[in-house]
Amino acid sequence: MIEINQTYTYDFKFSQEDVTLFAEVTGDKNLVHLDADFASKTVFKRPIIHGMLGASVFSKVFGVMFPGEGTIYLKQSLNFLRPLYVDVDYEAVFTVTEVISKKNTAIVETIVKNKLTGKLCLNGEASIMNEDKIK
Amino acid sequence: MIEINQTYTYDFKFSQEDVTLFAEVTGDKNLVHLDADFASKTVFKRPIIHGMLGASVFSKVFGVMFPGEGTIYLKQSLNFLRPLYVDVDYEAVFTVTEVISKKNTAIVETIVKNKLTGKLCLNGEASIMNEDKIK
Repeated sequence: MIEINQTYTYDFKFSQEDVTLFAEVTGDKNLVHLDADFASKTVFKRPIIHGMLGASVFSKVFGVMFPGEGTIYLKQSLNFLRPLYVDVDYEAVFTVTEVISKKNTAIVETIVKNKLTGKLCLNGEASIMNEDKIK
Repeated sequence: MIEINQTYTYDFKFSQEDVTLFAEVTGDKNLVHLDADFASKTVFKRPIIHGMLGASVFSKVFGVMFPGEGTIYLKQSLNFLRPLYVDVDYEAVFTVTEVISKKNTAIVETIVKNKLTGKLCLNGEASIMNEDKIK
């Protein structure tokens, strides 16, 4: 059962192959994600992961882990604070800030930080519904 | 150049193959996206597209079309109002609501609606930066 102040953490990283596949399926073929030469001339210096690929970790965790099966995604805000890079270890941290029992809904703070440096890369807030696990 | 009240529309649809590939690359293998039998027993009745796959259309358009190359994604809010299904025609509509010249930044209203019924499925607001195209 989801409770207020509950936290969940999930470690992840993406490879260049993941990024290339994400570009194929979404059609988002911005060269800053795919071409090291091109990326080297941008402010990022090397290829960055699509913001939505990074954010997909929130969807994955909600859908299959915390709270898991039956979760309906209602809202998500995303602040892209720092780029995510391939082959770097990140940690997603989820903190339940509010439970609205009569709507089977919870508000969850969602962040991604660099596992090594602790620097915050992505933050935001989600609203999720789950009739079995949020009461 | 991006100007206030400017709009851009983009038509898209996703196949079940796209959804399966998205599940592979993100690890979001919630059965509601992948298994028609499972989905038939949920409130959705048939497999739904991952919310972040639907939302990736915003990232794609900003990164490669409007305003295109050089765009840096700062923020995106997402309200998942209705599910998106495979093989259905959708229209993404972008409306520039604010231009902050000194920061080369624009606020853009982003929506996805069913092309046939006009029903709103996804809405939100983006903040993007582009040094060449937002002045």
